[in-house]
Amino acid sequence: MRIVIVGLGVIGGSFGMALKNNGYKDVYGIDKDINTLKKAKDMGIIKEGYEDGRQILKSADFIIISIYPKLILNFIKENKDNFKEGAVITDATGIKEMFIDDIVKILPDGVDFIFGHPMAGREKKGIDYADDKVFNGANYIITPIERNKDENIELVENLVYDIGFKSVKKIGSKYHDEMIAFTSQLPHVIAVSLINSDEEGRDTGSFIGDSYRELTRIANINEELWSELFLGNRENLLRTIEKFDEELLKMKKAIEDNDKNILCELFKNATFRREQL
Amino acid sequence: MRIVIVGLGVIGGSFGMALKNNGYKDVYGIDKDINTLKKAKDMGIIKEGYEDGRQILKSADFIIISIYPKLILNFIKENKDNFKEGAVITDATGIKEMFIDDIVKILPDGVDFIFGHPMAGREKKGIDYADDKVFNGANYIITPIERNKDENIELVENLVYDIGFKSVKKIGSKYHDEMIAFTSQLPHVIAVSLINSDEEGRDTGSFIGDSYRELTRIANINEELWSELFLGNRENLLRTIEKFDEELLKMKKAIEDNDKNILCELFKNATFRREQL
Repeated sequence: MRIVIVGLGVIGGSFGMALKNNGYKDVYGIDKDINTLKKAKDMGIIKEGYEDGRQILKSADFIIISIYPKLILNFIKENKDNFKEGAVITDATGIKEMFIDDIVKILPDGVDFIFGHPMAGREKKGIDYADDKVFNGANYIITPIERNKDENIELVENLVYDIGFKSVKKIGSKYHDEMIAFTSQLPHVIAVSLINSDEEGRDTGSFIGDSYRELTRIANINEELWSELFLGNRENLLRTIEKFDEELLKMKKAIEDNDKNILCELFKNATFRREQL
Repeated sequence: MRIVIVGLGVIGGSFGMALKNNGYKDVYGIDKDINTLKKAKDMGIIKEGYEDGRQILKSADFIIISIYPKLILNFIKENKDNFKEGAVITDATGIKEMFIDDIVKILPDGVDFIFGHPMAGREKKGIDYADDKVFNGANYIITPIERNKDENIELVENLVYDIGFKSVKKIGSKYHDEMIAFTSQLPHVIAVSLINSDEEGRDTGSFIGDSYRELTRIANINEELWSELFLGNRENLLRTIEKFDEELLKMKKAIEDNDKNILCELFKNATFRREQL
């Protein structure tokens, strides 16, 4: 099976490493940056790299697109005549509803797009931060659409298990985006808000323990990617922020009221839920 | 130097382990739970354990109090005639202003209390979760008061460096409590609010990546301890919640307004601050 990775950033590069380390050999790369292609080839994760992917796409059985969400539709548009009959495409985008319909509209009949979401990543961007270990034991989500062939979904499923993911969940894209707003986007909103709420000029570093460090790790954030992801999932994200804010204000009120009982209840509920995870 | 640890919970127990592993041998324990004392002795972290500490306190040069914040004042009251002339006491409480004055009022002249705060801990309680590794490379804070003798502050400082802390900071208790509200208490407020804002009955576990896992680790929380810490530092904590909420609503508004520029600005600021840490 010939695999082409489109976009060899931190995620595409990690896919490349994971494929290499699990015996996939016929792997090629497309990237707009020639240095990235060179690095990928030097690392041995692609056989060859292309700035212009038209030629290699024509022989690709499996295409992994890991470029910025907004660029994906355009990539499909530009290459719709370059895909091989029977080719399977997948992506790695954190939200789905935003573009599925638009992509399906222009996708050739003989090409199947299995929308996927590896629940793993890094704060940093670029191939230098690629690391296939982030996939180990992580969750993977597929959001099937009607026209997907079962065997193609299975192909993606098997491949991601192969490269280290521990669970593959198949769900509708609407539910996916709702859940992701809560489990992934809201934590990023919180981390950014937390670190931005620090007063300037304080020696905060001397007062942090594990908790602050953990809660702000993801505040080191790729602004281009995450603003696209946030705005592409606006309604869902706004709803989770509101629900979170309600809980925050509930706790604030308990503190204002010196109400130890309510505080303890909130803590017990949180502890119970955390242990369920 | 004879050391007595008062309260062999997760923190007291960790102190015991750290002392043992760094060559301190003359260490005793006081705890209300006889099983805990037995375990501590079996683990070799105390020479002997006492439910009633009066006798052993009389020969103690150094006393580490690691019991619930509200119990400390009472412990000092009950034992003020049992401390040896020249004894040095320290504690491990996460907030300070709440009780320093009250303690100083009743403390015998010949006894020095060096208020300390190890910036390290575990979500779980009890000696079974004690682990001296949590101190390795962690921050320690001392909040000196006027009557503290320099050599006694140094004694605490040397001891905590000995057992693995990497930095000891000496600051006023007022500033300490302000900073801790932000770097330690606010993250706990956030973690609890985040996990409590989940809708019930969803299969959240299948949709989590590192971010949600990290942001909610401390939502598994000792309700007795943390409600005391929150309510004992109310004003400071409320102020940090307000400032955090302002940042949260700033981001919410940018999402509502579809304002990518403001989002990117907030992200860049967060990234810059995180990298400074």
